[in-house]
Amino acid sequence: MEDLINSTGCTGTVFPHKYSGTTQNSTISSKEHRAVGFVLVHAGAGYHSESKAKEYKHVCKRACQKAVDRMRAGAMALEAVTAALTELEDSPFTNAGTGSNLNLSGDIECDASIMDGKTLDFGAVGALSGIKNPVLVARRLLNEAQKGKLSAGRIPPCFLVGIGAQQWALSHGIPPCPSEKMATKFSLSAYKRNKRKMELAEKIETEHHHLKKQRISSGTVSEIMEPISSSLDTVGAIVVDQEGNVAAAVSSGGLAMKHPGRVGQAAHYGCGCWAENACDAKPYATAVSTSGCGEHLIRTMLARECSTAVQADDAHQALLEAMQNKFIGSPCLASEDGVLGGVIVLRCCRCGDDQSSDGFQALLVEFLWSHTTESMCVGYMSAHDSKAKTHISRLPLGAVAGQSLAIEGGVCRLGAMNA
Amino acid sequence: MEDLINSTGCTGTVFPHKYSGTTQNSTISSKEHRAVGFVLVHAGAGYHSESKAKEYKHVCKRACQKAVDRMRAGAMALEAVTAALTELEDSPFTNAGTGSNLNLSGDIECDASIMDGKTLDFGAVGALSGIKNPVLVARRLLNEAQKGKLSAGRIPPCFLVGIGAQQWALSHGIPPCPSEKMATKFSLSAYKRNKRKMELAEKIETEHHHLKKQRISSGTVSEIMEPISSSLDTVGAIVVDQEGNVAAAVSSGGLAMKHPGRVGQAAHYGCGCWAENACDAKPYATAVSTSGCGEHLIRTMLARECSTAVQADDAHQALLEAMQNKFIGSPCLASEDGVLGGVIVLRCCRCGDDQSSDGFQALLVEFLWSHTTESMCVGYMSAHDSKAKTHISRLPLGAVAGQSLAIEGGVCRLGAMNA
Repeated sequence: MEDLINSTGCTGTVFPHKYSGTTQNSTISSKEHRAVGFVLVHAGAGYHSESKAKEYKHVCKRACQKAVDRMRAGAMALEAVTAALTELEDSPFTNAGTGSNLNLSGDIECDASIMDGKTLDFGAVGALSGIKNPVLVARRLLNEAQKGKLSAGRIPPCFLVGIGAQQWALSHGIPPCPSEKMATKFSLSAYKRNKRKMELAEKIETEHHHLKKQRISSGTVSEIMEPISSSLDTVGAIVVDQEGNVAAAVSSGGLAMKHPGRVGQAAHYGCGCWAENACDAKPYATAVSTSGCGEHLIRTMLARECSTAVQADDAHQALLEAMQNKFIGSPCLASEDGVLGGVIVLRCCRCGDDQSSDGFQALLVEFLWSHTTESMCVGYMSAHDSKAKTHISRLPLGAVAGQSLAIEGGVCRLGAMNA
Repeated sequence: MEDLINSTGCTGTVFPHKYSGTTQNSTISSKEHRAVGFVLVHAGAGYHSESKAKEYKHVCKRACQKAVDRMRAGAMALEAVTAALTELEDSPFTNAGTGSNLNLSGDIECDASIMDGKTLDFGAVGALSGIKNPVLVARRLLNEAQKGKLSAGRIPPCFLVGIGAQQWALSHGIPPCPSEKMATKFSLSAYKRNKRKMELAEKIETEHHHLKKQRISSGTVSEIMEPISSSLDTVGAIVVDQEGNVAAAVSSGGLAMKHPGRVGQAAHYGCGCWAENACDAKPYATAVSTSGCGEHLIRTMLARECSTAVQADDAHQALLEAMQNKFIGSPCLASEDGVLGGVIVLRCCRCGDDQSSDGFQALLVEFLWSHTTESMCVGYMSAHDSKAKTHISRLPLGAVAGQSLAIEGGVCRLGAMNA
């Protein structure tokens, strides 16, 4: 792998962070060289403390490994991306599957979606409780829809929510998982802490309301109210397989203390993930997965916007402009103080001049991530690598989250060496 | 009002239907001339039998009247579009609110959304039961989000589903409505009929499975199975008010015999409705509302696509091309036999040369509808008209639903006569 992008940009200033890219690792056997493929995962755009960084990196590494293992065994992008997501959901540290944020009622309700770049098929679940791996329900919805119409000509659903989604999962052989098993010590203590903060905030607001005639400004109230801590560490993955097929997926426990039934971008078509193989009209295959504040990501349809943007010649510049103009500067979010989110993006094309004896063509994969949050944790690995690389990208010192952005990435040439 | 479009087009053939346009009606008092505004509603793209046509036209007429009444009383687009939708939902003949299709369990679960073109704010509910007017919950979500953050810095939701959505509605003073009151004789008998068809279809499929070795083709099976009857008559409305603000809304009971928890385009950002005021980058204000098969409309993001398309010089041609290339010909729906849906679209701009003494400028409103379904029922009215016009648009004889389209429309100049 080679270095593509050495510096990153943010609104108004130059972001000095230097990213070293990845280096090619050729220690795997020549037989494996044919099983090319590349995976990029994220464990959320939000705030990753140094103390939690190690855990986040670990889970990203394991998720990449799972995806690559599957591709080495001959799996296509869709299966590999599912494997990565399942691993990310199973980590108690991420806000997806096990360890998800609790909602206002103390329950876990998850959103997830998956998209197949080859068929453009899509499956999604929203506000789903009692299922260990929401992405597996989204994947199953996608698979079932591919089988065609249901009995009596009914059109199969691509998006199910709530109890109906849970019932559908159970009736399709996906086992239930008690909510208690999905909650963690950390999520339970965060819930109690957040509940106290909310009660305090509401008490102060009520008192403020009574004291309004004494002209206490609402600024004073907000200064003494501490915002609740909400991990935005939604997870996602994007994959390109040896045939150049792309797939993308995303999964989230949603905002802490969200209202029951709230659905975020992870379940929303075009907002949580996007994958589209190359075709006549589109020279590059593209895949995107997002993270951050669901309401901001829905209203900017960020996944699809970024996918469309990186069809331009310069992917890095195009993604930078998309994040600046279609996200931070979106007229849809004009009234927001700050716009919080992050994306991972890959685009790839075949290298026509590099072909193996049995017809496999090399792939050029450009991979990028960008975020307006304090930090974003990513991991990536190609089937040529012996292990994944992980990285916590941070905004430059002094940059304001929600108004500035970081953008980084690399390029990887997936060879078509003769077996 | 003048005639804009005299003929309609469909894929591959020329659609000979001639639409006469609307004529200006100047019988209202000069005082009312200032309260300009225009509304276009639909009672669904699907199949409207001649026997049901009268009822559909009636409800469209009433919905237009409600919207115009509100604008004459000084209401803005968002309030007017809500008034039209409430009327459409309350009709027992439409598949929205009262009279909605029943799902597989015999329950009513509704989707609805609303968008304000001035602020680009959006509210949506999905799989919502026990609330008479789902659009009022979507509207309330939009309003509450406009108030800013919730206690302790929490971001307000823009999209709620299922029981959580119902609880939110009740806690915000929207009264409950027992499901029995929302079901009609017609929806109950359709449910029983559909259930029998499904049971028969499943019985035949099982037998077919056992007889597979005798090589009964699946064609034979599908020939003897009758598809369930599902009214696609989702409702929607789009409005422009005297200040040139646009708003759009949509509401649906979803497909008959859908799986509980299934959410269609009516709750999906960019898919069910879209509204965007004119701005520096966009010379026209646009508003769109869709109807048809939710899965097809989600995966093509049809509302937003049409809104973007009609920024082109020739709105009629642009909508025709969008319906052909981004809907019927969408790569996202390549595996579908037919692509079923319809849209209503308006775009408008100010006429700079026509200004009243107190600064009101005239508005030029172009309004269009297009559908790939057998028929689509629409109604429209300006604040200058004494009553609404209604129309059932049909595909030309011999055109195949799902593969052909009809497109019609008109133009209306909303004057700025001096009061």
